[in-house]
Amino acid sequence: MSRIALFPGSFDPFTKGHENVARRAILLFDKLVIAIGHNPEKSRYFPVEPMRKSIQSLFDPEKLEVILYNQLTANLAVKYGAKYLVRGLRNTTDFEFENSVTQLNQTLEPELETVFFITHPHYAHISSSLVREVHKYGGDVSSFLSYPLK
Amino acid sequence: MSRIALFPGSFDPFTKGHENVARRAILLFDKLVIAIGHNPEKSRYFPVEPMRKSIQSLFDPEKLEVILYNQLTANLAVKYGAKYLVRGLRNTTDFEFENSVTQLNQTLEPELETVFFITHPHYAHISSSLVREVHKYGGDVSSFLSYPLK
Amino acid sequence: MSRIALFPGSFDPFTKGHENVARRAILLFDKLVIAIGHNPEKSRYFPVEPMRKSIQSLFDPEKLEVILYNQLTANLAVKYGAKYLVRGLRNTTDFEFENSVTQLNQTLEPELETVFFITHPHYAHISSSLVREVHKYGGDVSSFLSYPLK
Amino acid sequence: MSRIALFPGSFDPFTKGHENVARRAILLFDKLVIAIGHNPEKSRYFPVEPMRKSIQSLFDPEKLEVILYNQLTANLAVKYGAKYLVRGLRNTTDFEFENSVTQLNQTLEPELETVFFITHPHYAHISSSLVREVHKYGGDVSSFLSYPLK
Amino acid sequence: MSRIALFPGSFDPFTKGHENVARRAILLFDKLVIAIGHNPEKSRYFPVEPMRKSIQSLFDPEKLEVILYNQLTANLAVKYGAKYLVRGLRNTTDFEFENSVTQLNQTLEPELETVFFITHPHYAHISSSLVREVHKYGGDVSSFLSYPLK
Amino acid sequence: MSRIALFPGSFDPFTKGHENVARRAILLFDKLVIAIGHNPEKSRYFPVEPMRKSIQSLFDPEKLEVILYNQLTANLAVKYGAKYLVRGLRNTTDFEFENSVTQLNQTLEPELETVFFITHPHYAHISSSLVREVHKYGGDVSSFLSYPLK
Repeated sequence: MSRIALFPGSFDPFTKGHENVARRAILLFDKLVIAIGHNPEKSRYFPVEPMRKSIQSLFDPEKLEVILYNQLTANLAVKYGAKYLVRGLRNTTDFEFENSVTQLNQTLEPELETVFFITHPHYAHISSSLVREVHKYGGDVSSFLSYPLK
Repeated sequence: MSRIALFPGSFDPFTKGHENVARRAILLFDKLVIAIGHNPEKSRYFPVEPMRKSIQSLFDPEKLEVILYNQLTANLAVKYGAKYLVRGLRNTTDFEFENSVTQLNQTLEPELETVFFITHPHYAHISSSLVREVHKYGGDVSSFLSYPLK
Repeated sequence: MSRIALFPGSFDPFTKGHENVARRAILLFDKLVIAIGHNPEKSRYFPVEPMRKSIQSLFDPEKLEVILYNQLTANLAVKYGAKYLVRGLRNTTDFEFENSVTQLNQTLEPELETVFFITHPHYAHISSSLVREVHKYGGDVSSFLSYPLK
Repeated sequence: MSRIALFPGSFDPFTKGHENVARRAILLFDKLVIAIGHNPEKSRYFPVEPMRKSIQSLFDPEKLEVILYNQLTANLAVKYGAKYLVRGLRNTTDFEFENSVTQLNQTLEPELETVFFITHPHYAHISSSLVREVHKYGGDVSSFLSYPLK
Repeated sequence: MSRIALFPGSFDPFTKGHENVARRAILLFDKLVIAIGHNPEKSRYFPVEPMRKSIQSLFDPEKLEVILYNQLTANLAVKYGAKYLVRGLRNTTDFEFENSVTQLNQTLEPELETVFFITHPHYAHISSSLVREVHKYGGDVSSFLSYPLK
Repeated sequence: MSRIALFPGSFDPFTKGHENVARRAILLFDKLVIAIGHNPEKSRYFPVEPMRKSIQSLFDPEKLEVILYNQLTANLAVKYGAKYLVRGLRNTTDFEFENSVTQLNQTLEPELETVFFITHPHYAHISSSLVREVHKYGGDVSSFLSYPLK
């Protein structure tokens, strides 16, 4: 039986920090599904479909699939047969938040396990919100992303 | 003289974590007032008056009263003759925030003391914002609340 | 029935930060017992019996008693009829430690409740270990203590 | 060559905590520029131009200049010939955020150095957002600011 | 090729918190090696060989092997063909420490990956040092361990 | 008047992380004094005099002097005419400790200011205690130090 893991997030945008976590997770699981949480009623800074394509372009689709979703992460995991969630930890603020979300998911879906990687220090300072801020002011964000922004 | 304590919060919704703190605080004080901060200009996810009634239904009104308020917490405490505020601590992020609010309240009202309980680990992962998120996506939140949602 | 609380610690030495917590706790409880943990096999920097007397000299013995102990805190609480432990929180490092100890005590003695005060910012930087360090190098520690060192 | 430092922030409002950091930074640099980030599309609670004047009134304009800006902080620093950013740290939540921003700025402008002061504990609990909250409810915020609010 | 992971620690003693992490890790890897760091020059509280046997008794030896070691963890991993280290995270203090150790191990052995599980909140307060403390004072530690202490 | 800063620590050993902080501090001050705290009664892992020479060999002695000391840091600063202490911050655990020490030093010597640099993420995981641990087990620590160990 194949080990499938879900890597959920809003990825607005998908940074080199996220990519670092994904590349390490691919080695541990048979298949990784990057799931972009996307509520059509909420606006994103970077349009979601081009973002999905950009992320997909970085990975072998046999090993890593990028999808959009708009439901509970725990339910999505069940739908995809994923027994694992993957998340990156950058710092203690991340840890406190992820700790809460992990217990919540386990309450909703007791079989669902969450596995963490500590983001490599080279990328740990890159947050999607800071990248948006830099981009909004016309700054060069290419060093934080490994795909061209259209 | 009776010892009155105020347990302020937005309680959107009131979770089993809040209830855990309230049940422990009741034993220490003669009367506990749960004060739901409610600014009519800001929208809540769970309507405030049904929430007030749901909370009140969990407790003996002689010992614990649930009210709505829309003013400074420090002023409300004076109005109710409460010398104590009660707050729960779930994690270090909570601690940093509560530390600031506590000193602020003591600046505004030097006699006002804040007493903390560490939320029982069984409930520490339950945050109101996560419960709203689950509910918004149609998830079952009954395990996080001890009253029925209408 | 009187509300008795235990304020346990090693108090090597008892600082103005500890005193700040004790003075605030006295107002909430009928009696406060400051319990100096003292293992005769471990050496202290400040001798324990003079320390006990110095602490006692700061408080009304009717309201606050200072004792030595060398057993489990949870057992000591039962012995003294104390339903409450009192502890101060200075920062997030304290919080993480106290969180563990609190759950441990509740496992050992389910009725035992721990109540926290956030140390006043004026005293929050004073740790016993730093005071010992300053004293060892001949520095003046009188501003950290409110009793004379013999 | 003179050492110029930039102290960027939204300062909505500029508190005694910010002032504490600025007064200490002035002694270390030849000139300090307080830069109020101000996006005309986003609304502030305290109008920006009166705030600029209030801040300027507290300091010698030869040593400390207060300006408005609406661009990347790293670019502003280059424009002003500032090799240093100055920031205050109040607690661990601040630290985690500033850690990210600092690395981001160094990626954008490798020569740009950030120097930190720990906010004096007397002021560390004062956050702009709490001051706005108190002011909104008609509370007296004069003890958090050292200039009159018009 | 089988996926082998190492779960290193001093396990003085091995608690239900450690067991919780191990049971979850077993499901993710083909083989888990619990490696008790043991420097014969340093004294332990609980003798190491009985501890090794107690841990082994809890798990199927085909899936989980318990060994003693006295060398660099990174070198031990190479020796056992383990590409993964497994560690539990209980709180932010753990996180900061594990963050440092993880980067260190990756510097020493670039292929070595560390995977984290957040300890279940039911066990997160159990630390080996607190269990030793309780045991030293004659307290009952059976609720923290799932094997009998000889 | 020249701006002198003291960079105190035990530096057992002086790592690339310390060096990173020192090189950045040199640019801000006219002179930096690296002060190795050395209590002859306490044993070090790396002998202190060779360490002093190794550190000195990395820097221009006109700009940076390395000394040994065995007194209160605040007193040493006065003796050297240093108005500033320099410290690096790697993570939140560091922050909480440095926060306490900074306020303590300011109580002992009100004129003494402490300036912080956040250690570059490339070096933030390097702690002296981990380097000692690696060295003790015969691991290669050369990537953590920029001088040869004799």
